[in-house]
Parts: sequence; C-alpha cells; structure tokens
Amino acid sequence: MEFGHDEQTRELLATLQAFMDEHIYPAEPILADELAANPESWDAPPIIARLQTQARDLGLWNLFLPHEAGGALTNVQYAPIAELTGHSPSLAPAALNCAAPDTGNIELLARYGTPEQRRRWLEPLLAGTIRSAFCMTEPQVASSDATNVATRITRDGDEWVITGEKWFATGAMSSQCAFFIVMGKTDPAADRHRQQSMVLVPRDTPGVTIRRGLSVLGFADRSHGGHAEISFQAARVPADHVIGGVGEGFAIAQARLGPGRIHHCMRQLGAAERALALLCARAVDRVSFGRPLADQGMVQDWIAEARVTIEQLRLLVLRAAWVIDQHGNRAAHRDVQAIKIAVPRAVEWIIDKAIQTYGAAGLSQDTPLGMLWANARSLRLADGPDEVHKASLARQELRRYRASGRS
Amino acid sequence: MEFGHDEQTRELLATLQAFMDEHIYPAEPILADELAANPESWDAPPIIARLQTQARDLGLWNLFLPHEAGGALTNVQYAPIAELTGHSPSLAPAALNCAAPDTGNIELLARYGTPEQRRRWLEPLLAGTIRSAFCMTEPQVASSDATNVATRITRDGDEWVITGEKWFATGAMSSQCAFFIVMGKTDPAADRHRQQSMVLVPRDTPGVTIRRGLSVLGFADRSHGGHAEISFQAARVPADHVIGGVGEGFAIAQARLGPGRIHHCMRQLGAAERALALLCARAVDRVSFGRPLADQGMVQDWIAEARVTIEQLRLLVLRAAWVIDQHGNRAAHRDVQAIKIAVPRAVEWIIDKAIQTYGAAGLSQDTPLGMLWANARSLRLADGPDEVHKASLARQELRRYRASGRS
Amino acid sequence: MEFGHDEQTRELLATLQAFMDEHIYPAEPILADELAANPESWDAPPIIARLQTQARDLGLWNLFLPHEAGGALTNVQYAPIAELTGHSPSLAPAALNCAAPDTGNIELLARYGTPEQRRRWLEPLLAGTIRSAFCMTEPQVASSDATNVATRITRDGDEWVITGEKWFATGAMSSQCAFFIVMGKTDPAADRHRQQSMVLVPRDTPGVTIRRGLSVLGFADRSHGGHAEISFQAARVPADHVIGGVGEGFAIAQARLGPGRIHHCMRQLGAAERALALLCARAVDRVSFGRPLADQGMVQDWIAEARVTIEQLRLLVLRAAWVIDQHGNRAAHRDVQAIKIAVPRAVEWIIDKAIQTYGAAGLSQDTPLGMLWANARSLRLADGPDEVHKASLARQELRRYRASGRS
Amino acid sequence: MEFGHDEQTRELLATLQAFMDEHIYPAEPILADELAANPESWDAPPIIARLQTQARDLGLWNLFLPHEAGGALTNVQYAPIAELTGHSPSLAPAALNCAAPDTGNIELLARYGTPEQRRRWLEPLLAGTIRSAFCMTEPQVASSDATNVATRITRDGDEWVITGEKWFATGAMSSQCAFFIVMGKTDPAADRHRQQSMVLVPRDTPGVTIRRGLSVLGFADRSHGGHAEISFQAARVPADHVIGGVGEGFAIAQARLGPGRIHHCMRQLGAAERALALLCARAVDRVSFGRPLADQGMVQDWIAEARVTIEQLRLLVLRAAWVIDQHGNRAAHRDVQAIKIAVPRAVEWIIDKAIQTYGAAGLSQDTPLGMLWANARSLRLADGPDEVHKASLARQELRRYRASGRS
Repeated sequence: MEFGHDEQTRELLATLQAFMDEHIYPAEPILADELAANPESWDAPPIIARLQTQARDLGLWNLFLPHEAGGALTNVQYAPIAELTGHSPSLAPAALNCAAPDTGNIELLARYGTPEQRRRWLEPLLAGTIRSAFCMTEPQVASSDATNVATRITRDGDEWVITGEKWFATGAMSSQCAFFIVMGKTDPAADRHRQQSMVLVPRDTPGVTIRRGLSVLGFADRSHGGHAEISFQAARVPADHVIGGVGEGFAIAQARLGPGRIHHCMRQLGAAERALALLCARAVDRVSFGRPLADQGMVQDWIAEARVTIEQLRLLVLRAAWVIDQHGNRAAHRDVQAIKIAVPRAVEWIIDKAIQTYGAAGLSQDTPLGMLWANARSLRLADGPDEVHKASLARQELRRYRASGRS
Repeated sequence: MEFGHDEQTRELLATLQAFMDEHIYPAEPILADELAANPESWDAPPIIARLQTQARDLGLWNLFLPHEAGGALTNVQYAPIAELTGHSPSLAPAALNCAAPDTGNIELLARYGTPEQRRRWLEPLLAGTIRSAFCMTEPQVASSDATNVATRITRDGDEWVITGEKWFATGAMSSQCAFFIVMGKTDPAADRHRQQSMVLVPRDTPGVTIRRGLSVLGFADRSHGGHAEISFQAARVPADHVIGGVGEGFAIAQARLGPGRIHHCMRQLGAAERALALLCARAVDRVSFGRPLADQGMVQDWIAEARVTIEQLRLLVLRAAWVIDQHGNRAAHRDVQAIKIAVPRAVEWIIDKAIQTYGAAGLSQDTPLGMLWANARSLRLADGPDEVHKASLARQELRRYRASGRS
Repeated sequence: MEFGHDEQTRELLATLQAFMDEHIYPAEPILADELAANPESWDAPPIIARLQTQARDLGLWNLFLPHEAGGALTNVQYAPIAELTGHSPSLAPAALNCAAPDTGNIELLARYGTPEQRRRWLEPLLAGTIRSAFCMTEPQVASSDATNVATRITRDGDEWVITGEKWFATGAMSSQCAFFIVMGKTDPAADRHRQQSMVLVPRDTPGVTIRRGLSVLGFADRSHGGHAEISFQAARVPADHVIGGVGEGFAIAQARLGPGRIHHCMRQLGAAERALALLCARAVDRVSFGRPLADQGMVQDWIAEARVTIEQLRLLVLRAAWVIDQHGNRAAHRDVQAIKIAVPRAVEWIIDKAIQTYGAAGLSQDTPLGMLWANARSLRLADGPDEVHKASLARQELRRYRASGRS
Repeated sequence: MEFGHDEQTRELLATLQAFMDEHIYPAEPILADELAANPESWDAPPIIARLQTQARDLGLWNLFLPHEAGGALTNVQYAPIAELTGHSPSLAPAALNCAAPDTGNIELLARYGTPEQRRRWLEPLLAGTIRSAFCMTEPQVASSDATNVATRITRDGDEWVITGEKWFATGAMSSQCAFFIVMGKTDPAADRHRQQSMVLVPRDTPGVTIRRGLSVLGFADRSHGGHAEISFQAARVPADHVIGGVGEGFAIAQARLGPGRIHHCMRQLGAAERALALLCARAVDRVSFGRPLADQGMVQDWIAEARVTIEQLRLLVLRAAWVIDQHGNRAAHRDVQAIKIAVPRAVEWIIDKAIQTYGAAGLSQDTPLGMLWANARSLRLADGPDEVHKASLARQELRRYRASGRS
C-alpha cells in the first residue's frame, strides 16, 4: 500500500496552489462585482475568460480528461486537483475548463462520439469556446429510476424528433451553451435498460424553449449558466446526432457517472477544507464571553470532527478513483455509490458548523459558506437521492447472503 | 393536568384555519408574481395590505398582544394561532399584524413606552400603518454576549448621539419601516448588565445610512423588508427617545425575548407541519422503482420521526408559554432557552426530509420548502447561536451540584 | 391548558421522595451484597420484602392500578410516581408492587378475569405474595407481528393443550413466580387478529420446562426473576383458564400495552434523571487538564441536551397518559407508539453520556449506569422494535393523504 | 497511490481465514461451555492453549511484532491480520499470541527493556507461557491527563517502593498473569511530562493485592483475565525493574499507544464486519409483516451505512499504519488520534443495528453481538475518552491559524 501522491501530481498541485493564491482567490470579489453589475445575465462574467487564459498558459487545462480519452492524468492523479479547485467552485473549475457538466459531456463525446461529432462539438468544448448542458432530469417523474424517463425520441425519416420536458439542466440558461445532450426513450417496449438513447441537440434548434432558471435555495447560479427548465416540442435533429448508438442511453449514462462523481466529491472535499479553514480563522479571531471561540469545547469538537471526517472521506474517494483506474467504471460501481452517499452530507455538516461559527454573516453574501452549503445540499439529490443509492448498495451487500445465509 | 385548548382558542383557530384556506394559501402565487414584477423593491407587495384588511374584518388582528399589554389572549392561547400562521410565514403573520420584529417592538413600547412614544409609534404599529425594525446585532462582535455591543449612545445636551454599525435589522430596508429601536452602550463603565440602553431612532434621522440588504442563503426576503446593514454616524434623537430608562437596555432585551421566542418557535412548528404535509402528499403521488415513495421504509421513518418530534416540541413550547402566563418571563427563562435550542434544528431536519422527498424541486422556487428551510436555519443563529444557550442552560443545571455534589 | 400536577399527586410524590431517600437509595448496596451472597438464585433478595412492608405502611402500594380496575389514581397521576421509582428500578417498582410484568398481568386480570381467576391469581398478586410472567415472544419468529405466533393452544375435552417455545419471559426464573399468561393460537384459520388467545398456566404445570435465563448484555437480572426461555410440551390447563374469551388474545395484548408503556417510559425518564444527576455530580467533582469537567464545553452540551430532551419527552408521555384517561387506550394508540419510539433511545443517549463522564467506572458495577443503560437498550426492542412502530405510525399519518393528496 | 495489499499479506490472510473457519469459529461454543463449567475462574479456558498450538504450527504467531522489534511485518501488513482476528475477539487474538495488553507490553520490553528484563519477561511472553497486565488507570483521578497519576514510586536504597491504587488492569485477575507494568510518579516536582516512570512489578510481590474484577456492562471477561482493581501498598521491586529510565514513563506510554491503537481499531473493524455479516444473514432469514427484513428500507439503510462506514474507516486506519511505518509513531500522532475517535463509535453503531435486527436475542448470550458491543463501547473510554482526543486534535488544527488567521 502507498498513500502518497506521485511526483507529477505533487508538482501540478504546487502549480495549482500558486494559481489559486495569486489569481483565483483575488478574483472572488471581482466575480461578485461583475455579477452585481449585470444582474439579469446568465452568461459567465468576463473574469472567467481572463482566468481561463492564465490557467491555460500554466498548463492547467482540461486536466480532468482521463488517459483513455487522450488526457494526461489518471483519476487518482486528477482527484487532488479537483479537490483544490473545490475551494473556489464558482471560479476554479471553470478557469481550468474542468467544470461540470462540460467535463461529463466531453468524456462522453471522447468515448462515444463519431468523428464528426467530435470535430463539431468536442473540439470547441476542449478549447473552452462553447459550453454544453445535460438534459436528464424531468419535472414529472422520479428520474433516479431511468425507466421513468418520459421524453420521447422518435425516428422520422432522417431525423430524430424530441418531445418532452427537462429541468435542472445546469448551464443551459447561458447563451454560451451551444448544445444539450438529451436523454429520452427511443423504444419504450425494449428491455428496461435498452429503452433509452441520447441525442445531441443544438440549443437553437426549433422546438426547443428555454423556459426559466430554477434556483437552489435562493441561488440562481447565474455565472454558471443557471439550472434551466427546457421544453422540447417536436424538436428535430439529424439522424447522426444520436450518441453511441440507439438503446445505449442507459449504459452511457452509467459510464458517465463514475469519474464525474469522483470530481464532484473531491471538489466537495475542497469546499469542506475551505469551510474548515474559514471556521478556524474565525474561531481564533472572535471573542465571546471572554474567550476566543477557538477555546470553546463545542467549537473544538466541530473542528476535530471535520478533520477526521475529511481525512477518511478523501481516502474513500481516492480509493474509488484507484479502482476506476485499475479496473474501470463498472468495477467501481459500489465504490462510487459509497462516495456519493457519504461525501455531500458530511461536507454539508462541516459547512453548517462554519456557518454557525460566523453567525448570521455565515448565511449572507459576505462569506462563500452559504453558496458552498447550497452546493453540498443539492448534491444529496443530484444523480438521484442518497436513499436510492443506499438501497442499491445494500442489495448488493445482501446478495451473497440470500443464497447461503452464512454468518 | 389538562392538555386541551379552551373554547375561545378553538374558535379562533377555526376562524384562522378558514382564513388560511380561503385567503392565505391562494395568495401565495400572487405574492410570487408581485415580487417578480418588482424585483428591486423592498416594500411589502400589495397583496399583504389586502390580506390585512380581510384579517382585521375577521377579528384576526394583533392577537399576539399579551393580556398585560391590553391584548385579548394569554401566551398559551396565542401559541397555536402563531403555529398556524407559520404554515405560510411570508403572508400570514403580516396579514394578522403579528409579524416579527414589530410584535417585539410593540410589546416593548406597550410595556416600557412613555405616553408620547406610545401615541406616536405604538398606535400606528398596532394599526398596521407603519413597520419597525430592531437594531441589535453588529458586524464586528459576537452579539450574543451583550457586553460586546460596540454602538455608543452618548448624551449631548437634549439629545442622544448614536454611533455604530448594525446589521441583520430585519424589515429595515422597506420604506414602510418608520423607526428602529437601537441597542447601544450609554455607560461602558457601568455594571456588566447596566451599560446598555435602547433608543428609538426614526429611519429618516440624519446620520442614519441604510447600506445594503443581507441575504440568507440567497434569499433577500424583500417582501418582509429584508435584513439591513445600517450605519449610525452621530445620528441624533431627542433625549425622550430612550426607552424604559438609561441602563435598562439589557433588562428590556431579555424581557422582549420570552414571548417572541414562543412566537418564533410556534411558527416554526407550523412550518414543520406544512413541510410534513407536503412530504406526505408527494410521497403518495410519486412512484420510484415501482412503488410510491410512501411505501418505502426510509420515507416512512422520516414521517414517523417528524410526527413524534413535532408533538413533543409543541408541548414543550406550550409549557413554556404556560410558565410565562403563570409566573412571568423571568421564571420561564430556562423553558424559553430550551425551546430556542430544540425547535429550529428539529424543524430544519423535517424540512430537509421534505426537500429530499421532492428532489431538486424541493430546493427550487417551486415549493416553499427552500424558504422555510432558510428561515429555520437562520433561527439557530438569531438571538445568539444555540451553543450559547446550551452552555447557559447547563450552568443552571449544574448550579445545585456545585455546592452539594449529591447524586 | 394546565401543566401542573394536582394536590393529591404532589402529596404522593412527596411521600415517595422521602421513601426513596430514606429507604430505597440506602438499600441499593444491600441489594448488591445480597445478590453477591447468593449468586445462583433467581429469587428476589430479602431486602425487597422488607421494602414492600415499609412501602405498604406508607400507602405506596399498587398505585399503578387504574381507576377502572379499582385503583386510586388516573394515569396522569400515576405517571410521575412511576418516574420517581425509575430512579432505582431494581428496587422501587418492586417495593411498591408496581413492577412489570405483574402490573400488566394485574390489569389484564382486573379487566378480563373471571371471578375465580381474580380470586385465585389476582388477589395474591395485589397482595404481593406471588409474582407472575407474560409469555409472548418466541425464539423462532418475529413476534412483533402477532400473526407469527407459533405456539398452539388446542382444545382437548375440558382442557387446553399448550405446545410451543417462549423466551424473554421476565420474572419466570423465580420460584416466586406462580403462573404465566401465555399467548398462542387457538385458531390459525381465523381472521388475522382473531387467531390468538391467552391462557393462564401455573408455573408447575406438567409439560412446562424452564430451560434457562437469558441475559441482556451481561446482566442476568436475577433479583427480578431473570428472563426465561420456557418450553411448553403438551402442557394442559383446565378450559376455564382462558382469559377474556377465545380469539381475544390480540385485542387483550393491545389493551395491555397502553398503560404499561406509560409506566415503562416514565420509569425510563426517572432513569434519565438519575443518570443526569450522576453526570452533574461527577462533572463538578472531577478535574481533567486543570478544569472541572463541568466547565468543559462538551460536558455542558450533554447536560443541556439531556435537560431539554427529558422535559419534552416527559410532556409527551404525560399527554399520552392524559389521552388514555380521557379517551381510552385505543384513542391513545399513536400517542403510545410515539413515546415507545422516542423515550428509550433518548434515555439511552443520556445514560451513555453519564457513562462517558465517569470513564470506565461508568460501565462497571460501581455505578448503576451500566444496568440502567442495558434496561434502556432492551426497551428499544421490547414489544417490538422501534422500526415496526415507526412504520405503523407513518402509515397512519399517510392515511389521509392517500385519498386526497392535499398539501 | 496503491490501495492493494502485497502478496505476503494476501497469503497470510488466506492462511488466517482458513484457520478462522476451521478452528476459531467452531471453538466459540466450546469456549462458552468451558466458561460455564468453571464460572469462578479467571484463567484462560483450555481451548485457548489448544488453539495457540495450532496457530503456532501455521506460522500465525506474534505477527503483531513490528519490524524494529524483530517482527516480520510492517504495521500496514499486520493491520488486516488484526482485523480478521477481531471477528472472534475472545479467541483469535489470544490464539495468535496477539492479544492486548500483552502486545503493548511486548513492544515496550522489546524496545526499552534491559537484556535481563527481556530474558526474564519478554521471552516467556513471546512464547505465550505467561501473560501480563498494564496498570495505568486509577480510580480516583481522570487518568487521561497523565499529570493526574497519584501512584507514587519512591526510591529506597536498591528498591522502588510503589504505593497507589490502580484499576481496569485487563488480564490481571488471571493466575497466568506473571507481572504488571505500573505507571507512577517518581518525581512530582519535575516537568509535567517527566514526572512519571514505569516499573515492572511481579504479580506475587508482597504489598500487591488484587482486590476484585470490574465488569463492563455485566461482562466480567473472565477468559481474558478480567479487569482488576489492584492495591499497591509499599510494594517493593529491585531498582533494575524500572523500564526505559526514570522520568520516561510518559514518553514510553505515548510510544506504546500508536501500534496498539492500530490493532484495537482494526480488530474493531473486524467486529463490525462480523456484526454486519450477522445482520445480513438474519435479515434474509427473518420474515416480519410478510417480507424478509432484508427487503425493508430501514434495514437496507443500516446495511449501506455500515458498509460505507467500514470502508472509509479501514482506509483511515491503514493510512495511520502507513504513516507509522514511514515516519514513526510521533509523526502519526494525529492520525492515531483520528482513528481512536472515529472507529469505536462507528463500530458501536453498526453492532447496535445488528442487535436491533436480531431483537432481544441480539442482546443475549445467543449471539456474540452483546459482547462485541460492550467491547466497542469500552474503547470509547480506553486510553482516555474520545472528548480528550478531539480537543487535542482541534488544538493542533488551530495552531497555524492562531498566528496568521489566514482563510
């Protein structure tokens, strides 16, 4: 066993840490000002493009891309990079062209895209000149059960005709978003996991209506393109816009999830580290009833719990990344479920304690804590609620007992 | 012992329930539309005034006012009224002229105000023609420790001169807010709890600057007048604007808290009932993996936990109200601390589970759950973080052991 | 609403408090010595009988007996008495002839017994000259589901023939235990809740074998008659030994549970008060790292949590008792489920914190905490695991939504 | 990073797994019978010696001994071995001569013992022909604070004179226990961490009185030599019986803790795996309300939580072992504190859920769960309560903020 990072990773982390300190953290108030100056816009404020240029110059670009998709790093190597970007999730992932949902869409196109799809959509995504969205969740059904998907994708001559309602399509409110990958049913009569297909739909396709942005708690996430409700009413795309084959939608969606959840979870741990650092800084500064908060038992308890929790969860995520690297996404299914269950709620708890240490300021726009908390909370629901994953994990654990009953 | 409500209370509850069903719930989408139509305003949208007229006609007006302040109801009688208004906290408390912080300010003026103060400020508050704010918390200090208050109130001839920074002054962003009650130190050299005084400061006093609205997890709470940061720079008010005597600020603040926390906690339980009702309604409607959520063990567990928790906390709050009615605010000190600790976090948990049942919709503007959650969360900090109250409660519990050590 | 106890109750409590202080607490080391002197015995040590005489002289006898069974007190009046006996659960309930399972059996015979059954079994139970056991749980099935009961009670001429295995029959190891009330199926083909009957079986009936005592964690509970595994192999009793009618077993069992759970829960709260008192006494005495434990934040947090929890749960139990008094056992079904769910686990938590404050001594025989903890833990399973009750409670909560779906 | 075990470890694990299946699990009922046949004895029942012979023949002997003490395995290699023995903690650690407190004492003698001490005491310990105890905790003081130690070790000519009271000396009730390592103060006036020394005291030294065995939740742990209260009244040992130098007691105690806690925590994870396996086996077998427990949501939730928790904690312990291997005990201080805090409570939770799945049987002698639970619970106190370790960990986390306050 070996718990240390290799040299390449350590060097990249040092470069990124310097970039965070010199460019990202100082850009946070700039982002706030740019957002305030343009309150109705859903596009990325100008600071993002400036940071992208700087990051690219430093070689901090598309680092998430796995080996088999032409990338330079393994999942284990990229994981701590993702963590560090999570300290400033509104800026760093976008600056490095490593923000969801583009990362997942890039992986998907790199793996399943036709040469033409790759040329037209993947290349500009990798160059950071366009953005994309992923249309999976639907307002009327429990989307964690893929067989519930109600959107229909019907063949009509040389075209696919898409009809349905999607929502929480992150990034889709932005005019910079060029296309959506849409999950729908091409054959509702097929086997449970062969009914679904994915098609690529340009955002300006007739029949596509962007209805509104959904908020998360009170956050609209405008700088990130919001979370859109989108209506597809007989929207038509050419036949070659299907991705990876008809009936492959479910399988592709599963494959997309592994590394994506590693990224999400590592960024979450970065958010937890940020929150813990803020908590500690506040605790040593703030005096209440004659003693710094840092000397008070409950605050110390929070700090210890946070530290212990972050350490064990980071190892759990890194091990999941290692399993993906060694044996592929499918082999890592349970490991990935485990991190999806364990990380967001723990991070939520840590941020909550940082908020509590700040008092009302912790909930306000004066610290990043409120936004970080909302992110963590929403991840307990994204890709299906934790409860669905726990039930699935339990059934796998029980499998070997059902036959034998040994203890 | 008697756990039933008296007849007067039951009748009022029936009247209010009908009002909620006929007027309040149908007004919720109207409120949303009016807010959306006027996104920069901090004033109460027109629907509020319409509801106030209706409520007043039904005798649902100023019900919170305790007996000794000329009101019709005891705290035990008003408590379930407050709970019911908590089902729709953006509308119902305001509609009944029972919204914080006006309620606390009214009580304070009714109890400690001079005849002139009562005529000029209390009467229009009771009539609902103006609103008010309470300026206690400060950005630079841990305000849960009253000795930390940094605002200075200095005597200069016939005037008080106020200098300091306040924030999270709920309601103060609204132009309908006519005055603030401001806590500051008149004598930093006096005994620990005699240093503070309260003065009444009209909102348009020169030297008063409303800097900005603070948000709570993304919510600006505009319909309620927001949460203001206010700067007092040598703001001057006449000498008779002090409330209840110089050096009485701490004592008055304590007295203000008892019934106010009863109201907060009962409204929170109403919010919990609303969330639980939404959870159950969703659970019977939504099918996942072939079964309604209502048939799934985890969801049932949440429902049972929510029901058991609400029942026990309601009794705890009602008992605290009863102690106030029987023996006064001071005697109820521990009871009131207990509900402050126990209620908001439990309600937060219940709303969280309702959100989880709804999926991402639960966090969005499509349900009231996100806003209810943010309210509950902020109450774990309002009037001092829970941890301060727990430490105080523990010290009282320990008192009798310090002398004797019996077991 | 009225949250105070009436005068009769307050007087009884004062008498009992004096009895606890003068006789019960001083008898605890005597009990330990008597048990150690006779380690193989399952009978009540002599101190119990001495305390019974004293309690009877003070009028502290059979107080649990409800009005309708000829008792002097309502459930609301008895509840705080039960709580106080819970401070010393190995002695006080037995001393007052208020110990389970005799209390439940007495109620059952008082309500459903024939005159002959009452003369022969109820009278000596009320006099404290015999004890009894209740045989419900079976080793091979999940007994929380009454339809699982595997014991058969078959009619053969003028006799009932009982065949089956029972366990966790509390008290049955003692030679002072004169009879069992046994639940079994008389008609497995009847309606789900009409299959079961209860018969009274003298302990010395041929075919009855007391196999062994079960322990709870490492406690055998010898002074209380242990927890027996009992085999019934064609044990025969006269036909008139059925209780309350053939097919009535399930209904009687349900009726038996209401007041019994009130008693259990109130005694548990007494145990929690004892644990909290021990915790506080230790905390002021013990110095670690230069400060008494009582000054340390975590310990204060435990104390505050314990106090707040006890207060709210006591109100919940008292309200359940009040519902039984006002409307009967059936009406209190949900209230009784709620306390069964909420009380033992909370008390377990409080005792755990007292143990933590004592260090290893808290787990040893040098404090009552270990035994109190084991009692609390076992109540999360007694009468069915909490999870069964939570599911049932949730289904009732959901009932009104299944039809209408209102929110 | 590399998360797989090396080949040597995998082979040893295979050998041990076979030994567990063929010898250890079948010996559990034998142990119970032997204990029941000799209820007053504190010595290891005969089955232990038989298993030791078998283990030794298989090369499963003293595997815990670290490289630097002449052992064959690193801490990372031994850790999974320790875990596997934890599935049957009453038998497997003793069978492999890897049971606490002997392991800690062996390490200590291997590292700090004089040649004579090693010859006389270490060799028979390594051979398994004697056992030993460690006398640290005292009844009158909070021993987690080493400066509280009240036992005095005074020089008198060529002898050390020991006077004090110790308790919870595990193993010391057994006649097979040949000596104790006793912590006491040789110089109460020295620096805080230089006051203490350790001396080796043969069990039969005049002045040593074994007073009684302490129980843990009713368990006396007789097969393991119990937990003794021991009085030292001017007990004298030769001057050369000091270990590692006068004033070194605290430093040695700290050094002893690192690997010992790795062992404890890994065995605890083994206990958790055993409990989870028992839970799953029961869940698929047991039917309640028409469905196996395994199909019920709450039970699935427990299983998923248990699995996720075990995985992350195992990684945390293995990483701590790796840090010890790479950088020594001192460097691993925080890592070892983290596992001490995180593991026992989590294991306790998992065992609790297994108990809940079994019903009352889970608390009885019919499953190992009650004993496993008591073990886990006692580890939240052993070597100081969790709260002490959390406060220490927090202070280290805060250190860098106290100077700089960066966030």
